[in-house]
Amino acid sequence: MKNILRLRLLQISFLLILISSLLFPQSSTSNLNYYNLVADKITKKVLTEKTGYKLLQELCEIGPRLSGSENSLRAISWAEEKLKNFGIDKIWLQPVMVPHWERGNIQTAQIITDKSINVKSLNILALGGSISTPENGITAKVIEVKNFTELIERQNEVKGKIVFFSRPVDEGLLDTFAGYGSAVDQRVYGAIEAAKYGAVAVLIRSVTTKHDNVPHTGVMIYADSLPQIPAAAIGYLDADYLHNALIDEPNLSISLKLNCKTLQDAQSYNVIAEITGTELPDEIIVVGGHFDSWDQGCGAHDDGAGCVQSMEVLNLFKELNIKPKRTIRCVLFINEENGSRGGKEYGKFAGTNNENHLAAIESDRGGFTPIGFDVDSDSSVLNKIKNWSSILEKSGINWIRKGGSGVDIQYIKNTKAKIGYVPDAQRYMDVHHSANDTFESVHPRELELGTASIAIMAYLISEEGL
Amino acid sequence: MKNILRLRLLQISFLLILISSLLFPQSSTSNLNYYNLVADKITKKVLTEKTGYKLLQELCEIGPRLSGSENSLRAISWAEEKLKNFGIDKIWLQPVMVPHWERGNIQTAQIITDKSINVKSLNILALGGSISTPENGITAKVIEVKNFTELIERQNEVKGKIVFFSRPVDEGLLDTFAGYGSAVDQRVYGAIEAAKYGAVAVLIRSVTTKHDNVPHTGVMIYADSLPQIPAAAIGYLDADYLHNALIDEPNLSISLKLNCKTLQDAQSYNVIAEITGTELPDEIIVVGGHFDSWDQGCGAHDDGAGCVQSMEVLNLFKELNIKPKRTIRCVLFINEENGSRGGKEYGKFAGTNNENHLAAIESDRGGFTPIGFDVDSDSSVLNKIKNWSSILEKSGINWIRKGGSGVDIQYIKNTKAKIGYVPDAQRYMDVHHSANDTFESVHPRELELGTASIAIMAYLISEEGL
Repeated sequence: MKNILRLRLLQISFLLILISSLLFPQSSTSNLNYYNLVADKITKKVLTEKTGYKLLQELCEIGPRLSGSENSLRAISWAEEKLKNFGIDKIWLQPVMVPHWERGNIQTAQIITDKSINVKSLNILALGGSISTPENGITAKVIEVKNFTELIERQNEVKGKIVFFSRPVDEGLLDTFAGYGSAVDQRVYGAIEAAKYGAVAVLIRSVTTKHDNVPHTGVMIYADSLPQIPAAAIGYLDADYLHNALIDEPNLSISLKLNCKTLQDAQSYNVIAEITGTELPDEIIVVGGHFDSWDQGCGAHDDGAGCVQSMEVLNLFKELNIKPKRTIRCVLFINEENGSRGGKEYGKFAGTNNENHLAAIESDRGGFTPIGFDVDSDSSVLNKIKNWSSILEKSGINWIRKGGSGVDIQYIKNTKAKIGYVPDAQRYMDVHHSANDTFESVHPRELELGTASIAIMAYLISEEGL
Repeated sequence: MKNILRLRLLQISFLLILISSLLFPQSSTSNLNYYNLVADKITKKVLTEKTGYKLLQELCEIGPRLSGSENSLRAISWAEEKLKNFGIDKIWLQPVMVPHWERGNIQTAQIITDKSINVKSLNILALGGSISTPENGITAKVIEVKNFTELIERQNEVKGKIVFFSRPVDEGLLDTFAGYGSAVDQRVYGAIEAAKYGAVAVLIRSVTTKHDNVPHTGVMIYADSLPQIPAAAIGYLDADYLHNALIDEPNLSISLKLNCKTLQDAQSYNVIAEITGTELPDEIIVVGGHFDSWDQGCGAHDDGAGCVQSMEVLNLFKELNIKPKRTIRCVLFINEENGSRGGKEYGKFAGTNNENHLAAIESDRGGFTPIGFDVDSDSSVLNKIKNWSSILEKSGINWIRKGGSGVDIQYIKNTKAKIGYVPDAQRYMDVHHSANDTFESVHPRELELGTASIAIMAYLISEEGL
């Protein structure tokens, strides 16, 4: 009886939903059929032609693209040229002044002990924004702590020492971005916290999920009120080595040399290109990634991938002769890694010109297999996008959900939907901000399915509105 | 008005669903909370301890595990020993006679042309089950065809020649298994089709998504009524080379030598181990993969991954002190690649003993990031499993859907649910059946999340039934 009643209630419910959806359809069936065809075409084209993958190879041959570097300007010219070759009618460079930090050519950390005449060199990388050491380096004893709480507890031991922040990423978390978040405070704020108690430098365990010895850099900051001290990341295995060495001989010293420096702000650019909408050209849909990278590897996943995907979206529309109702605009934001000046400048520009940004989609989580889209919008817009799930499945998208979007597009005000493209991230932190982030670490099918997902999403928003 | 009416109908619908679910809950909230805790524990444990990954490393050190080979027997002993060390109380080897094919130590294919005195050697691999060539090899002209239709059209040109089946995988498909299916007929049936028209051997383009020169083997079959002719796969790049060489000089010859052979059937075993259920021990839930592999690489993804995941599931239950209500049985099936004798034998055993298999879960699609589960069951069982989605999400599962399960578990009769674990497969065909299928091609987090997904699924079926 219970089961029969339950069944009856469910049947009535579904009948009512059915009536409702038949009376008031969101999109006509013929539209949906057509969108499915377009989604199939897009997916097939990217997987067979791999245009984005070829773009990424060219981009990686230029090298890494740290804000302010010559390479970054070369890459900007390359992107402008490529977009012109695609036959995109409207392309411009948006001037942005960016921070200009250089690593220099000296970065060494050597363990000096009484026990051994052999010197052990650690694999290190200066953190982005770090000051240099004096020319002769800094030689000091080391205090290892796991977190800021332990640092505070042991503050009396810190003065004159190098603080070694050794806490690894929490690998037990499914979400590697959450794992990254569990350890990255040491990198970003370590120098500030250590300087409070008189430390002379900081070394951090690389924030990574890979147990190799390739150090991972990333941004660090100073506080105006505190002394600036040099900061570097150690390879995961050498962090283990140092940890064990400190157990063996707590009084060991490290001799650290860095000659990195911060120069005057440099001229740089966001690269912007668009296909003007045929019916509602003033309604803009941004697809973008950040064009700068750290100076290790070639920033293939972070965020060469997001950039070539965004460029390829425009190329796809051109080559498939898709004439979008609304304007599709590709933005390659400069300086996400150490200042977000590109994102801020673009947001200012959009505000000043009263541009109507219907949506912005950012790809900055690597060039891996599509999983879903995080949508930052009100619930009616979210539900509208969720209705397109079966079309987005054509490129491998499994879900649409409420969530944060991207660092660069956050500065665009009054956007109905800010959307973050979410690929599989299980391997991302292995390569992120390190020499592991090479072209070879990107798989062509994974990268291209990302392009397809973003292209289909941009297309649906263009045709259906939000 | 339309919108208000629509809203009202939807509100009524959802209210009725709510009442229905409140009156007749599927599982109590406290159960769900507990299951969520267990799922979190499982996920955390696999990602931090990586026991399955370590097992895979040991397994790969033994080498590949072709049915009938000494290595396969060594691996079987290793698995038995490992399961004993886990403290699993019930472990047995189930005898199975398996086909015993050996590659031999000669496999060469050389292009001979009038134009050049240089001989070009092609990278080849005999297909599994192929006969050898005569000791001096076969030297013959080559006819290239794309498919069996073209072969039939040009049947008069085939006699005395080597047929080169050159059709690549359809890379435009999202599903790489569908892509594989678009080309694998050439490998499996090529020798039969070519022999019909008097061909002396067949060469096929490797069935792969990777554009390198590593050949991919796999099973091929003969027909009793037709002559048996040798068959080998060519590396993707060398298949391109041969295609171009044939355009340049259609009369070129290939000299092919293989000394593979089929020996008498050999003694082998399925490895079976179980944790007996505390409340309903006669209701069995199988978790399994196939333990044999091709003789290239070490069968890390195909299917070392599925096997170590299945072993690790039992270890997880032991170490987390989970005492399942129903029996969880790990089965490592032998001989999936070229005969499925292990699957058939297990199915027969289960039938003869009137065992009650509630469910069987197979992992045989590589050790990549979890995507979903394909469930072969009636719709009420499918819906029950779908209700667990939010728990399975803890290990990265995005969906549960109706679909095929696995080659080995298909032989288990009267199973309420046959379930196929579905990881991301974008990279699978790069390594499948080739020397690329190494331990290094497996990522620890991806592999381990597969274990967690299967463990959580087995646990939920054990506790809730189907």
